[in-house]
Amino acid sequence: MNAITSSAERKVHVPLGERAYDILIGPGLIARAGAEIASRLKGRKAAIITDEHVAPLYLEALVKSLEGAGIVSAQLVLPAGEKTKSFEHLMTVCDKILEARVERNDYVVALGGGVIGDLAGFAAGIVRRGVRFVQVPTSLLSQVDSSVGGKTGINSRHGKNLIGVFHQPDLVLADTDVLNSLSGREFRAGYAEVAKYGLIDKPDFFAWLETNWSAVFAGGSARIEAIATSCQAKSDVVVADERENGPRALLNLGHTFGHALEAATAYESARLVHGEGVSIGMVLAHEFSARMNLASPDDAKRVEKHLKEVGLPTRLSDIPGALPPAETLLEAMAQDKKVKNGKFTFILTHGIGRSFIADDVPASEVLGFLKQKQPQ
Amino acid sequence: MNAITSSAERKVHVPLGERAYDILIGPGLIARAGAEIASRLKGRKAAIITDEHVAPLYLEALVKSLEGAGIVSAQLVLPAGEKTKSFEHLMTVCDKILEARVERNDYVVALGGGVIGDLAGFAAGIVRRGVRFVQVPTSLLSQVDSSVGGKTGINSRHGKNLIGVFHQPDLVLADTDVLNSLSGREFRAGYAEVAKYGLIDKPDFFAWLETNWSAVFAGGSARIEAIATSCQAKSDVVVADERENGPRALLNLGHTFGHALEAATAYESARLVHGEGVSIGMVLAHEFSARMNLASPDDAKRVEKHLKEVGLPTRLSDIPGALPPAETLLEAMAQDKKVKNGKFTFILTHGIGRSFIADDVPASEVLGFLKQKQPQ
Ligand SMILES: NC(=O)c1ccc[n+]([C@@H]2O[C@H](COP(=O)([O-])OP(=O)(O)OC[C@H]3O[C@@H](n4cnc5c(N)ncnc54)[C@H](O)[C@@H]3O)[C@@H](O)[C@H]2O)c1
Ligand SMILES: NC(=O)c1ccc[n+]([C@@H]2O[C@H](COP(=O)([O-])OP(=O)(O)OC[C@H]3O[C@@H](n4cnc5c(N)ncnc54)[C@H](O)[C@@H]3O)[C@@H](O)[C@H]2O)c1
Ligand SMILES: [Zn+2]
Ligand SMILES: [Zn+2]
Repeated sequence: MNAITSSAERKVHVPLGERAYDILIGPGLIARAGAEIASRLKGRKAAIITDEHVAPLYLEALVKSLEGAGIVSAQLVLPAGEKTKSFEHLMTVCDKILEARVERNDYVVALGGGVIGDLAGFAAGIVRRGVRFVQVPTSLLSQVDSSVGGKTGINSRHGKNLIGVFHQPDLVLADTDVLNSLSGREFRAGYAEVAKYGLIDKPDFFAWLETNWSAVFAGGSARIEAIATSCQAKSDVVVADERENGPRALLNLGHTFGHALEAATAYESARLVHGEGVSIGMVLAHEFSARMNLASPDDAKRVEKHLKEVGLPTRLSDIPGALPPAETLLEAMAQDKKVKNGKFTFILTHGIGRSFIADDVPASEVLGFLKQKQPQ
Repeated sequence: MNAITSSAERKVHVPLGERAYDILIGPGLIARAGAEIASRLKGRKAAIITDEHVAPLYLEALVKSLEGAGIVSAQLVLPAGEKTKSFEHLMTVCDKILEARVERNDYVVALGGGVIGDLAGFAAGIVRRGVRFVQVPTSLLSQVDSSVGGKTGINSRHGKNLIGVFHQPDLVLADTDVLNSLSGREFRAGYAEVAKYGLIDKPDFFAWLETNWSAVFAGGSARIEAIATSCQAKSDVVVADERENGPRALLNLGHTFGHALEAATAYESARLVHGEGVSIGMVLAHEFSARMNLASPDDAKRVEKHLKEVGLPTRLSDIPGALPPAETLLEAMAQDKKVKNGKFTFILTHGIGRSFIADDVPASEVLGFLKQKQPQ
């Protein structure tokens, strides 16, 4: 818990050698973006990519801040939502960057949630075979997860995030004030990923969240510290495994079930958003671990109690509308890329903060478990 | 000249650490492709990308060879030509790779010239954030240049090769027999890049080519050795500067003029193909170096004599149709990405095999030189 103090702004350094960068977390960072960027990067040209929800709220302030630091910017406002992570929009973004004559030392700035960050980061990774990239994440999920670690990409009709590159940002500016305009539901969805870091390997952090979650939701220093601890946790995993060949898979705790649920609800955000799927998935992962005699059922109950308390869904029956039968959910899980040679690779746990990678989980066990869980 | 011996097949190893790979050069390699791939790579699934000229000649043989080694392949045949290096075709290729369920240890196989290699290599670099990649280059240009070094990409309306990634192949199979079906003009265009390696820093190789070029054109061991020496030269530069931050720029000898000529002829291959532009560009680079008192005019004459002898164009007046005025050519050169802060970055030379990077060439000198060269 050494990351948790009471100072107003936090910095997490991601030590990736020549790709190292800082994450700044605190209030008022959009207003200071120009100064922070100009003090770190040589270029003075930027292409800002954002979406239609975020643009009216924060684009002008960002442009002004860059101007104040002598940085000229072009802007592109895209439709909001997961469908924007497409080849068509990727092409539009690349074109905008080239039109703005962004050179290798200039930068693409992503102002928005994970959708904008993933798309703009991918474009930054391929224009001129890589230009610099600044993340200004505006959703809680993007501040604690997607803006850190360099995974970028778009979706294909064959599945989510299947096309992309690893392209680390040069700077991440997480302005914690902007989270106040996020809907309660989106904030909670991001919170599921915060809780995830505790459940992976930080039992003290999970306990701290159980006590302090309402302060995190309220804003102020508890929020800043929860985000900083999450970024530090993500950074540690990324540094250990930058290109996701091994331990980085732990970040998928709750995600194998979660992705299957997102697929089963056709990615309709009215029914389920990503973090909600992760919330239910984390409870299922703890329950399944208990069923396999790997962890105590009490841990699963404790996880469910906390996520429910903050207002997240935790059961299949919390999802509005009918779900497909267990066999179909299993099929959706098998489509996931974390499946090798018919055996399931799952993130399971020995208890809170004691998760591990299990790469030989029998499909029959999962099916039996899902049948028991299915509300039908 | 230690690369030149008389054995039937040659191997050049590109020592890039965990991205190291072999280039095999010799006859009959398509027939042996399956065995060579299977002995090096774990996966047993491939997506072969090729074009409509190459497919009728070599696709069946390649598919059979893979089958013989237990490798299942999907095939995609694209239109031939530079226009295929587009976002639209990139999307088609990515889709094909995913449809074929190519996983991270499986591979994309590029069967064709530089267009197919650049496009398929880019797709291999971004599907699942990188799957394995095998080059089977079939044009001389691709065997000696584009298949080695990991530069991949597509064109944008803002310019050539502006969008792409660095993604090294895992194996390059240069079957020297297939060059027999290449048109004389395409063979000569590739030969310009072979001569380029001599002019950059291998004066002995250039002298060897002056004596042996007709044997290289005829096929047999001289051809194999010329290709192997070229691949070794390219490999040396790539190993010194994998991501093109410095010395790799030497590979652009002749290319600043050449690209301007390609732009001036609207990339119409009936008028000028890339290697022809490079041939004229290399003569101009030597002449311009002489004008700047950096090299002897005799060197420029020797370069022109050799390129002319093999049948390559060497003068602006060799290009059919009218060219724009010198000012427009200068403008096209300034559009090139090798220009910084108004000063031209040029590859100039102190003589044959003694090229260097000059990053402060005054535009006025270039304009004066072009005016003198313009046939109008
Ligand atoms: N690259 C990674 O490592 C990684 C990790 C996790 C998730 N992701 C990706 O992230 C995406 C989800 O991210 P997300 O949840 O941020 O989605 P999102 O970008 O769609 O944002 C959610 C919604 O909130 C709006 N919004 C964002 N900031 C706001 C603000 N401050 N005020 C008001 N509205 C705001 C957006 O316009 C959008 O409507 C998914 O595509 C997922 O695949 C990537
Ligand atoms: N990646 C790099 O480092 C790099 C370096 C140099 C050039 N390039 C790129 O390479 C491309 C040019 O390559 P190219 O000259 O091979 O062009 P290409 O791929 O268009 O091939 C030229 C023509 O020859 C045909 N062809 C190829 N092999 C044949 C064979 N064995 N028999 C009969 N016909 C055959 C093709 O169908 C095409 O019509 C350009 O797009 C250029 O930008 C890339
Ligand atoms: Zn997630
Ligand atoms: Zn070339």
